[in-house]
Amino acid sequence: MKISGERLLSDLDILKSFTDTPGAGVSRFSYGENDKEARRFLAAAAESNGFSVRTDPIGNMLIGLPGRDENQKKICVGSHIDTVRNGGWLDGVYGVVSGLEVLRTLLENGSDRAQEVEVVIFAEEEGSNFGSTMTGSKFIAGIYGEKDLDRLKNEDGISLREMLLKCGCEPYRQEDVIWDFSCVKAMLELHIEQGPVLEQEGRTVGIVDAIFGMKTVEVTIMGIGNHAGATPMRYRADAMSAAALCMMEVERIAKADPDGILVATVGKVVVSPNCSNVIPEKVVFTVEVRDKQEEKIRKGIMEIEEAVVRISEQRGTTCEIRTIADSKPFRMDVRIIKLLDQMALEGGISHQILDSGAVHDTCIIAPHAPSGMLFVPSIGGRSHVAFEDTEPYDLISGAQLLLNTVLMI
Amino acid sequence: MKISGERLLSDLDILKSFTDTPGAGVSRFSYGENDKEARRFLAAAAESNGFSVRTDPIGNMLIGLPGRDENQKKICVGSHIDTVRNGGWLDGVYGVVSGLEVLRTLLENGSDRAQEVEVVIFAEEEGSNFGSTMTGSKFIAGIYGEKDLDRLKNEDGISLREMLLKCGCEPYRQEDVIWDFSCVKAMLELHIEQGPVLEQEGRTVGIVDAIFGMKTVEVTIMGIGNHAGATPMRYRADAMSAAALCMMEVERIAKADPDGILVATVGKVVVSPNCSNVIPEKVVFTVEVRDKQEEKIRKGIMEIEEAVVRISEQRGTTCEIRTIADSKPFRMDVRIIKLLDQMALEGGISHQILDSGAVHDTCIIAPHAPSGMLFVPSIGGRSHVAFEDTEPYDLISGAQLLLNTVLMI
Repeated sequence: MKISGERLLSDLDILKSFTDTPGAGVSRFSYGENDKEARRFLAAAAESNGFSVRTDPIGNMLIGLPGRDENQKKICVGSHIDTVRNGGWLDGVYGVVSGLEVLRTLLENGSDRAQEVEVVIFAEEEGSNFGSTMTGSKFIAGIYGEKDLDRLKNEDGISLREMLLKCGCEPYRQEDVIWDFSCVKAMLELHIEQGPVLEQEGRTVGIVDAIFGMKTVEVTIMGIGNHAGATPMRYRADAMSAAALCMMEVERIAKADPDGILVATVGKVVVSPNCSNVIPEKVVFTVEVRDKQEEKIRKGIMEIEEAVVRISEQRGTTCEIRTIADSKPFRMDVRIIKLLDQMALEGGISHQILDSGAVHDTCIIAPHAPSGMLFVPSIGGRSHVAFEDTEPYDLISGAQLLLNTVLMI
Repeated sequence: MKISGERLLSDLDILKSFTDTPGAGVSRFSYGENDKEARRFLAAAAESNGFSVRTDPIGNMLIGLPGRDENQKKICVGSHIDTVRNGGWLDGVYGVVSGLEVLRTLLENGSDRAQEVEVVIFAEEEGSNFGSTMTGSKFIAGIYGEKDLDRLKNEDGISLREMLLKCGCEPYRQEDVIWDFSCVKAMLELHIEQGPVLEQEGRTVGIVDAIFGMKTVEVTIMGIGNHAGATPMRYRADAMSAAALCMMEVERIAKADPDGILVATVGKVVVSPNCSNVIPEKVVFTVEVRDKQEEKIRKGIMEIEEAVVRISEQRGTTCEIRTIADSKPFRMDVRIIKLLDQMALEGGISHQILDSGAVHDTCIIAPHAPSGMLFVPSIGGRSHVAFEDTEPYDLISGAQLLLNTVLMI
């Protein structure tokens, strides 16, 4: 049974045009006009094949054969269609279109499996509106509930509840959103890697083993802001110099990982007062540490915190460190990993088992139902940028492997 | 002849209240309501002593005895009364009030010298409105002219010309602004140090020898922005890590100066996209190098540029460096330095000759007329902050030394 690579690529190409920023990548926030257009396009494509479409009160979309039994075992495949600002054309939407392509192919080939497959489009995965990633799947898993509808607000102060009602979603009822996970035989998500590993290793697909855990701390270094001309070097307590030294330590500690797995990133830096002629008084920066082993994350953060305190003491600055995010590493379902591995082998698809440093909707589903993730290479390892791309051969191979796996679950 | 320390401190105390940010330091931008109030207060004080007040088309205020001959030799004393946002109560205004106190004391003591002294309040020294420092003195010296009235715009897009007309200033005529420097026997400015040297050395006043030159470059490091979880350390081209290493080099190069004079500062840092979970793609930061020797500034900047290029090559990032400011070091008038030194010695005032890392209005006047600057200590070396302060004894001693010097010129 073969998917139609042409149809897959054509759908992806059409969806690329639903963007707030034509010519500057795809900007398609959940609940926005282009999100609605993209949903209409997908719904029309699904309905033209005889599938039914249901949207839950959070905006999660579910596509499957009409009249299917809610209590029947099902295989969920999908991802999201929202993007970051000026993002790429594949992040998320590739997994959705591939899911739809798998479902169409099953139906066209008269497979009974078509009854069991449900394509899911998770809402607000990127958190572009409400600053909270994987929002749709968190509601599905019951991590988020009633109170979060009012708590989550976008930049204009609009709550998620208001936004959903404006979009014509049904009023929230928990039972209409939370899944009965006992019915979920498997959750499968096909996604671009968003990193350089598969390209560097020359693979067509990657099968995700562990999802990295992550701890993010915010470090504040307080120095003494002073006139950059009138203050000799020996009298300074420069918050930026101290912070720069901390950042070198963050990198050194991460690079010292003998496994070559742990990553540590200083992604956000805010300097005050941030004038060329004033010695920085305050620098606030984030340090994010990820690894597949919780113990290594803990140890990495501890070493970094010790370094920050030591540097601050040496340099006459003060420091504060607070945790802003913390998630445990965990593994995809072993049987699904094995099945994906076997299917890739049988299909003659160049592949490897790898870990995911990024978190996806399927990570939210994974504690509740057997879950697996497949990656295809990102050219240059780039994602969340306009020139995010993947070779057509890899895109088609990934979707085909998804179909083969769905058939064997 | 003795100044009134009480009157000096009382005037300073009253002027402190003319702020847009009561309770959070002095915010008094040129041409704003509190600047007008402060000017009205100073004009009333001057007029109550029988002095006349003239405001030129740029807003520079000149106070002296009425009917004085424009072509007569004069001694200018003064500074500015505008501040940075949330600045201190002494920066600038101390030199203005001291000048007025000197003039009042001369008149009260029947000194002929009163005829010769003109108190000057330079407009827009801090550049808080138009981003251009020492604006008033630059017009006086002819560095700025007609075209700059339209070029200089504040954050709201209002030009300096519009602002001046709104304030009721006369329409600009070059001859009403530029000074006839052949008439200026001396320009003297008393100012707070804004640095820690005098406090550290336990001096009451400092006599400025050299004003540091300065070169400021803007460095742009371009790396590869990528997912902070999905990109192993070995595949990264992190613009922030490269920038942090450059910053350590900036500090190392400055601290290696055998004279202990050269200063180098990274004051402004802007990171893109500045998200905790994205490897920084671009970091733009300023490097400002100051010294009293032009050759050392040139060499320092060259070493820093070499380090930036080398680090960028090592780390797979690219870099661009452009000059955004460049001024030469120069010395105050040697005869005035000697006179100030002699007067301090005779007055038994603990003093030292020092250099100024900061630039002041008098630096703009100095190429045209014999100029001198006096500093008093800044407590904790702090300035441009709400708790900027100087001991009353030092404030009074500085003003007294100014008077003694004016008498002997």
